Amino acid sequence: MAQKPSIPKGTRDFSPTEMVRRNYIFDIIKSVFQRYGYLPIETPAMENMDTLMGKYGEEGDKLIFKILNSGEYLDSYNKKFIEPDIDIINKTLDDIASKDLSNFIYQDSKNAFLTLLGSLKKSVGINSKIMTGYISEKALKYDLTVPFARYVVQHQSEITFPFKRYQIQPVWRADRPQKGRYREFYQCDADVIGSNSLVNEVELTQMIDDVFTTLKVPVLIKINNRKILSGIAEVIGEKEKIITITVAIDKLDKIGVDGVNKELTENGISDDSIKKLQPLIEFQGTTLEKVNFLKTLLATSEIGLKGIEEVEYIFKTVESLKLQTAVTELEITLARGLNYYTGAIFEVKANVGTLTSSICGGGRYDDLTGIFGLPNMSGVGISFGADRIYDVLNELNLYPESVAASTKILFVTFGEAEQNYCLPLLAQVRKAGINSEIYPDANAKMKKQMSYADDKKIPFVVIVGSDEMQSGMLSLKNMQSGEQEKAGINDIINKLK
Amino acid sequence: MAQKPSIPKGTRDFSPTEMVRRNYIFDIIKSVFQRYGYLPIETPAMENMDTLMGKYGEEGDKLIFKILNSGEYLDSYNKKFIEPDIDIINKTLDDIASKDLSNFIYQDSKNAFLTLLGSLKKSVGINSKIMTGYISEKALKYDLTVPFARYVVQHQSEITFPFKRYQIQPVWRADRPQKGRYREFYQCDADVIGSNSLVNEVELTQMIDDVFTTLKVPVLIKINNRKILSGIAEVIGEKEKIITITVAIDKLDKIGVDGVNKELTENGISDDSIKKLQPLIEFQGTTLEKVNFLKTLLATSEIGLKGIEEVEYIFKTVESLKLQTAVTELEITLARGLNYYTGAIFEVKANVGTLTSSICGGGRYDDLTGIFGLPNMSGVGISFGADRIYDVLNELNLYPESVAASTKILFVTFGEAEQNYCLPLLAQVRKAGINSEIYPDANAKMKKQMSYADDKKIPFVVIVGSDEMQSGMLSLKNMQSGEQEKAGINDIINKLK
Repeated sequence: MAQKPSIPKGTRDFSPTEMVRRNYIFDIIKSVFQRYGYLPIETPAMENMDTLMGKYGEEGDKLIFKILNSGEYLDSYNKKFIEPDIDIINKTLDDIASKDLSNFIYQDSKNAFLTLLGSLKKSVGINSKIMTGYISEKALKYDLTVPFARYVVQHQSEITFPFKRYQIQPVWRADRPQKGRYREFYQCDADVIGSNSLVNEVELTQMIDDVFTTLKVPVLIKINNRKILSGIAEVIGEKEKIITITVAIDKLDKIGVDGVNKELTENGISDDSIKKLQPLIEFQGTTLEKVNFLKTLLATSEIGLKGIEEVEYIFKTVESLKLQTAVTELEITLARGLNYYTGAIFEVKANVGTLTSSICGGGRYDDLTGIFGLPNMSGVGISFGADRIYDVLNELNLYPESVAASTKILFVTFGEAEQNYCLPLLAQVRKAGINSEIYPDANAKMKKQMSYADDKKIPFVVIVGSDEMQSGMLSLKNMQSGEQEKAGINDIINKLK
Repeated sequence: MAQKPSIPKGTRDFSPTEMVRRNYIFDIIKSVFQRYGYLPIETPAMENMDTLMGKYGEEGDKLIFKILNSGEYLDSYNKKFIEPDIDIINKTLDDIASKDLSNFIYQDSKNAFLTLLGSLKKSVGINSKIMTGYISEKALKYDLTVPFARYVVQHQSEITFPFKRYQIQPVWRADRPQKGRYREFYQCDADVIGSNSLVNEVELTQMIDDVFTTLKVPVLIKINNRKILSGIAEVIGEKEKIITITVAIDKLDKIGVDGVNKELTENGISDDSIKKLQPLIEFQGTTLEKVNFLKTLLATSEIGLKGIEEVEYIFKTVESLKLQTAVTELEITLARGLNYYTGAIFEVKANVGTLTSSICGGGRYDDLTGIFGLPNMSGVGISFGADRIYDVLNELNLYPESVAASTKILFVTFGEAEQNYCLPLLAQVRKAGINSEIYPDANAKMKKQMSYADDKKIPFVVIVGSDEMQSGMLSLKNMQSGEQEKAGINDIINKLK
């Protein structure tokens, strides 16, 4: 029986229509990256297991897709765990066989049994976690950031710093598949590494504005700074609990003030500290008002004041340079990815439509490459979520007319003579750079050929029968308007070019 | 200790320089595909195991990278093999314990041992092949052809046939890594499915010519037809042994006539048949001479004559349309990928340089989608080997000047005041669509900033100090010629646009 074909859950095929739309998004992002001096790199789909493991927390490790070693992948596991056991078993059996069988009584049997049982339990107690280390040495990349850090360290001698790179590639996560979340999806990252300058943060903000202005999606860029969060933890007397605090206040949007306070209490933050935090999480105002408020609140925190200074520079410079359509806002509770962000934190949401999830995010990290042996390299970057941007553009129908199937003209013929007549004309049209086709089966019915053009959304067809062959004047039909006219091949080329 | 970073053997990182060169190749291939009406699709990196297994022969199956199921991936294996054994062991031990121990003598012990031993051997005899079926359900795609067949069957109701698709994606093979052969590499395939017309073969030939003409690589396109090979097997009386015969004669280039004959003998082809084959493998001549020769040789073979007819049509039509730089040749011994080709067979080699491996290949297959339940869909396609084309272009240094790093201009400054002065100018330059940068660290030494431009091969720098700020006339330096001039920002934009 033939197999009923399907693909793994959480993965997708992309049809020509989807591809053209996705490429529209990728091309805009790419051209903005390049306009700001970012250069492309690519890293392999597979990384060595130890490059990835331990970089995403325990939960992340579980979501990494592991690749079986090739060939007899169990050999090293068997060598370590099974063969020694088999040796023991064989030895025990030899021992028994060597004895005088008539004396082979209970105690001997029992001892032999116990030995065997020990081996057995070891052999059969196969455990996914232990086994993985022996049968898998490679895994699919989980994001583009860790492979980028690995790349920078591995190729440091060839790289000119500050290194501005972009990378648009798929990543894989064994997440539970659900609406809008996939196991294979593209990330579009731009990072600069080896520069502390806040000009980079300013440019990344401009890049976000450029991308979404070109895509015609008005967005809100929320900006915060990890140092402000550190300052807050410091002044409320919970310096050590910064992670707990930021994880909680980051949820303000979703669970409200009461929810945040409840979570803080549950995580051992004192009532006094929570009380001190209230003015902050309740504060409403413009970015300027927030900055002034923070300056008072964090007056005693050196790191907090540094954070405010950074934020002020970014907002002031961005304002003087003027964004095109994006709106920026200081969001004191924004914390995303706190694990490694050390300075600026960015998050972008569409300001239109119903889709409220983040479509871009990023921040500064001070020691990403340290884990691979290159310390003190500060970097800052952003990542565009192509799938979510695609969803937003689909909902709002923001694709320009020109983003459609690419064939401009189809030659429709009534038989082999006509087909032979058309082939050189088709070559001429293509030489002029016009995407064009001839219906390959010369004897197909006219209706079939026309509906091929319809389905493929080809805007023009040239119909060639014996009249056209004789006169050289071809019938050119506009598939949208239905209008038909007679024209020579050169006129057609000039019209469509 | 920090890890020393590396990547799995057989995989590669691509630097900005390599990326730009690779994209040059991909972009040319893509634009030719589109000019002939082929549309892009993408399929996931992972396919279900049963989509891939059994499609590439036993050797191929071994080279497929398998992905471990996520989570407790051993559960289903343990349930099937380990738990029943543990049950047996426990039962045996219970049996023994329930007996009067004073009567527990040799025979009982021996029987108990034998039972246990049976279980043990089953449990510990873990075998990679058996285990794989339980711990892995997904694999990385091995080529683009089988996933394409799966795609066509799965989405048949949404597809307009004939379906012309192209696909440029990486594939993975657990081949032994060696020079020029990788475990992750890109394939660039164009296939049309659902059309028997030989016009498709003609167009694929033109596409090969278009691609390599644009890349400036003169190529030889070798063409053959599986039906001719079938005819030959028929007339020498070895119809059933076509695979053996074609595998042998396909090696003529490498092992010579004697080698071929030796291999034929070793594989059970009779002396008589081998003798009949000699005129054919020794035949030298033009395509026309070969066709005439074959017409005589295969006069009694219906299928052979059909093959000649197809080949004649393709050569005649291609000749009348005129290729730009590619040379075509009928190669009677060409057989590649005989497993599924049923009509035309293509192979392309560079006609210059030292690299003799095939850089493009393809052919017609009559029933690719049959395995997935959609019979009688004829297709024909070609695949460009991006890595080998890259090697050829590198050897011959065929990249145009414009294929280089993309930043056109760098702003070099002497401090923060200069940087602030430059940021709005930079925004203007970018608005004009010119890829441009400012050195982010305002206080970096001039030398450092200039060598950044050098390393990144940025052709122009604008140097801004206090004089320039006062006059608005910036110093524009051509990095290649070393010439320096004073110019306003608008002049600079017009110059570089």
